Amino acid sequence: MSVTTTATRRPVPVIPARGALRPLGLDEVELTGGFWAERQRRNAEVSIPHCDHWESRVGWIDNFRHALAGTVEQRTGREFADSDVYKLLEAMAWESGRTSDPRLDARIEEIALLVEAVQDDDGYVSTKYGRPGQEPRYTDLAWGHELYCFGHLIQAAVARLRTGHDDTLVRVARRAADHVCVEFGPSGRDDVCGHPEIEVALVELARTTGEERYLEQARLFLERRGRGSLPDIEFGRAYYQDDVPVRDAEVLRGHAVRALYLTAAAVDVAVDTGDDELLQTVRDQFARTLARRTYLTGGMGSHHQDEAYGDDFELPSDRAYSETCAGIGSVMVAWRLLLATGDTRWADVVERTMYNVVATSPSRAGDAFFYTNPLHKREPGEEADPDEASPRALSRLRAPWFEVSCCPTNVARTLASFAAYVATVSDDGVQIHQHVPSRIATTLGDGREVELEVETSYPDDGDVVVRVVAAPAGEVSISLRVPEWSVGRASLDGEPVDGPVATTRRRFAAGDEVRLRLDVQPRLTVADDRVDAVRGCAAVERGPLVLCVESTDLPAGVGVDRVRIAAGAVPHDLEDGVHVSGELVEREEGPWPYRSRPATAPGATLDVRLVPYHDWANRGPSTMRVWIPQERP
Amino acid sequence: MSVTTTATRRPVPVIPARGALRPLGLDEVELTGGFWAERQRRNAEVSIPHCDHWESRVGWIDNFRHALAGTVEQRTGREFADSDVYKLLEAMAWESGRTSDPRLDARIEEIALLVEAVQDDDGYVSTKYGRPGQEPRYTDLAWGHELYCFGHLIQAAVARLRTGHDDTLVRVARRAADHVCVEFGPSGRDDVCGHPEIEVALVELARTTGEERYLEQARLFLERRGRGSLPDIEFGRAYYQDDVPVRDAEVLRGHAVRALYLTAAAVDVAVDTGDDELLQTVRDQFARTLARRTYLTGGMGSHHQDEAYGDDFELPSDRAYSETCAGIGSVMVAWRLLLATGDTRWADVVERTMYNVVATSPSRAGDAFFYTNPLHKREPGEEADPDEASPRALSRLRAPWFEVSCCPTNVARTLASFAAYVATVSDDGVQIHQHVPSRIATTLGDGREVELEVETSYPDDGDVVVRVVAAPAGEVSISLRVPEWSVGRASLDGEPVDGPVATTRRRFAAGDEVRLRLDVQPRLTVADDRVDAVRGCAAVERGPLVLCVESTDLPAGVGVDRVRIAAGAVPHDLEDGVHVSGELVEREEGPWPYRSRPATAPGATLDVRLVPYHDWANRGPSTMRVWIPQERP
Repeated sequence: MSVTTTATRRPVPVIPARGALRPLGLDEVELTGGFWAERQRRNAEVSIPHCDHWESRVGWIDNFRHALAGTVEQRTGREFADSDVYKLLEAMAWESGRTSDPRLDARIEEIALLVEAVQDDDGYVSTKYGRPGQEPRYTDLAWGHELYCFGHLIQAAVARLRTGHDDTLVRVARRAADHVCVEFGPSGRDDVCGHPEIEVALVELARTTGEERYLEQARLFLERRGRGSLPDIEFGRAYYQDDVPVRDAEVLRGHAVRALYLTAAAVDVAVDTGDDELLQTVRDQFARTLARRTYLTGGMGSHHQDEAYGDDFELPSDRAYSETCAGIGSVMVAWRLLLATGDTRWADVVERTMYNVVATSPSRAGDAFFYTNPLHKREPGEEADPDEASPRALSRLRAPWFEVSCCPTNVARTLASFAAYVATVSDDGVQIHQHVPSRIATTLGDGREVELEVETSYPDDGDVVVRVVAAPAGEVSISLRVPEWSVGRASLDGEPVDGPVATTRRRFAAGDEVRLRLDVQPRLTVADDRVDAVRGCAAVERGPLVLCVESTDLPAGVGVDRVRIAAGAVPHDLEDGVHVSGELVEREEGPWPYRSRPATAPGATLDVRLVPYHDWANRGPSTMRVWIPQERP
Repeated sequence: MSVTTTATRRPVPVIPARGALRPLGLDEVELTGGFWAERQRRNAEVSIPHCDHWESRVGWIDNFRHALAGTVEQRTGREFADSDVYKLLEAMAWESGRTSDPRLDARIEEIALLVEAVQDDDGYVSTKYGRPGQEPRYTDLAWGHELYCFGHLIQAAVARLRTGHDDTLVRVARRAADHVCVEFGPSGRDDVCGHPEIEVALVELARTTGEERYLEQARLFLERRGRGSLPDIEFGRAYYQDDVPVRDAEVLRGHAVRALYLTAAAVDVAVDTGDDELLQTVRDQFARTLARRTYLTGGMGSHHQDEAYGDDFELPSDRAYSETCAGIGSVMVAWRLLLATGDTRWADVVERTMYNVVATSPSRAGDAFFYTNPLHKREPGEEADPDEASPRALSRLRAPWFEVSCCPTNVARTLASFAAYVATVSDDGVQIHQHVPSRIATTLGDGREVELEVETSYPDDGDVVVRVVAAPAGEVSISLRVPEWSVGRASLDGEPVDGPVATTRRRFAAGDEVRLRLDVQPRLTVADDRVDAVRGCAAVERGPLVLCVESTDLPAGVGVDRVRIAAGAVPHDLEDGVHVSGELVEREEGPWPYRSRPATAPGATLDVRLVPYHDWANRGPSTMRVWIPQERP
């Protein structure tokens, strides 16, 4: 760890006190086109207004008015509804930082004033607890989500501060943070919240304000966890990671979003307090989670019941929960590990999860979302009611809103700030982690300025050109990540690249180019044999994209349950996407599904068209599978 | 349907008004040894007292005392805790009918007097609703379970009446039933209970008392269901089968126990009202459920989240819920269909489910139970706390009691009355459905008396001898079921049998024997290829038993995830059980579980010992699997 970050109010979501790499801000990286710029545009134009509309419509913003007016019996939504308002504010704040749209600033201020009006003198703020007719504060730490809500309030304020606004929202959040430090400080309540989130928020607030006590409070929460202070419940205390101290755990477990937010905070605390042992522990936990408890898409969480990790290799495709927010949590952890260690493997995780979980959630139009992201759909879903909030995990198409609606605003804040996850700098080099058309204008750790342009059609093709717009004096490194699926099959300026990073180190002049060529041709992937759910199946991937077969592309009336990949078949690109040779299975139906020999026979050959998983269910109800049974050779 | 039953107060759990076959009572069939007699003995000696002990200990019996004393704030257990007291009474009632143990009669009366004291003047009785300090009656039909509780009260009373006791319990239950008929009758509330159960109970009460209005009330509840009178919930109204009218549904869906209890009632109502169309509909629904939504064990229910059926062929082994009570519900439905239609296929279902679900629940000692019955255990469970009620679905060994403890008493009432499920009679014959050492003394439909003895070591071996103890004049049929796995491989008195029933029709004299020989040798079974969860795997069955491999029988430190069945291997009997040739897989561990080619290689050969699934987890924590990956030839 060599880089020390001092600028803490730049438009960057995560600014560790030290680390191998320095993150760049929205003022340093601009997405200029392609997959993510398109999604960022749609996020700004459709999704953020959509979330504002729905939060108004279902009353979660009005909850603050009810708190003020004393009409708390009219409060709507779950106990954590305030947090969704705060996540919307955070999304707006990053979007305002990216585009300087004054309408966003006005809306943020309007809502922040409401929140401020509700805030108690001591900094506590909630529409759910503490007023006449409500339960008192902190009567239900396990499920009340008060600190979780504060965490999102603080993250919104951090976004605001870092995009140049020391405004009402910041004032409110700082008072809330101060309240937390008093109430739960070293001489306060010896408790934690049922849902981690306050921890990552407090660390970032410390980084932004320079107030060490916020970091100390985050550390305290982290160390308190795992000592059984929360009640035992049907799912066990592992549900909220209160079963084992963070330092003693071996793998992520329990509720996936909780586990990932906590893990992100553990990285932050380890980095900012110089606790390398904790950093190593958490890195090992996350590595083991990736090796044993993660879907091909990067998704995490195998259980619907408790939105939780399953046992090692318990990764059912059809009942995959793979919550969108857990994908975002995994990106948060991986990004922090990348900054801390410089290991590009973590950028692979960011890429896989962004393309295959986060990008899957919003519809093409940006006005409906997946909450869960299963890899297999056995029955066509029904269209969600466009006028009603949907249950979060009901088997159906993307829905405009959910009764628990954490995912849409979580996607919105992530897309709005995504430019910050594209590249980093070190003392004397730039590292490009995500191959996105972009302009990068930044300052190296040694103070030299550099300006680059990245041109690529990635992931459609594998060519990535970095053009130097302005070069500093002396040698500079330009590094490009080689994703793990292209390692050994990549070239840099025509020369084979060995390993996960393609680096050119030399003097550059304006107009110089570096050209990385990755092998994005489609490939078959099989799973560890302990993933029982997909034994005998293969998936098709192309570059960073997981593909799937959707019944929409099959002959009329045929579901994906009849598709096989032919023995020895190799997927290939055609004009309209990736195809692979397959066949349609014929089978006898019987009264009992178990017998002495298989009841199937190969049927007609079939040209199987595959589509990106992130784009599935955009053409009406369908059946779908990522993992496709493969005929034996 | 030819047999009309008139004797309605004989010790028989289910006495349809008509049907192809007449059920026999505990006074006609006695289990004399073997698998089920042993379990019946253990049930009487250990399990029933154990349930009484725990219901006393956790306060569910005391709830009635609190209702009386006005100390309702001390009530314990879930809203349906009364039902477990009633199911205990039903178990005691059948056990008393079987053994005439006066201590059981005294205990039944003691508890019944308590219940009677709590009963309101109009027949309503509940420890949960309607008293000062409690919610009013029927304020929460979706979740309150009041009618569900009445159903179990009535079933206990039916058991009591049919075993010769027209006592306090019967008086209480009849008053409750009368209350239900007023409150929910044609001119009463147009509602149903969130949990079906009252329906089966009312039909049986009608059959026992001759009061048609109870049958009519059951029919009303059945017809009202599926019209959306219950609230929409996160799982959808399918959860409590209020999505589609019974007559319009195609398959069982939603909460499995609810669906099965409702289906049993639908058969009852169809039979007793002569509604053959309804009978056919329900039969088709159940057949489709068996063909597509049933585990190899006969277990039903794929989801932990809502204890519900999944989609067709969604049958994960590791997350199988397969609730013990759903197994019992399936036996209830299959038995009713057998009586109605005479089709022995339904007796196959009874056998499979009894041996592999119901028998699996109790520990060898009879003092601990499985609530869920997964077919794969990835991590060794922990021992349950012997002094605490366990969460119902936590991943652990059998537990002495559960916070929701429907299963132990459900097993107890089923085992106590199991003799009634062994055989039936028609006008001129006896049908032996379950091959159990037993004595059968009964009267044929045409009035002739017959007495038989069944001797067998089944399922250890496949020989079943029926000895005529007393023969009537004229020809008589003796029929023995040939289970589907032995069809085409069975013989009767040395002659091959074709089809699912082996029938001898002739004049018999005392001492004559009929000898059925079934092929119980172990066999490999594969699943329909749409059951993704077990693709590439085989299970070993032996006779009616599903077997499994348990890590207890593997080399130290080896889990079941390394076991393969060798290509072409055939399981075979040895002294200590069934064995099959296998191998221990070697594999590379990697940072990511998905790659371009498999990471496993065949390792050492291994002689795999299999144990009956019903006996797993009786030797301490272990990993286990029913479905074992099979090497390709």
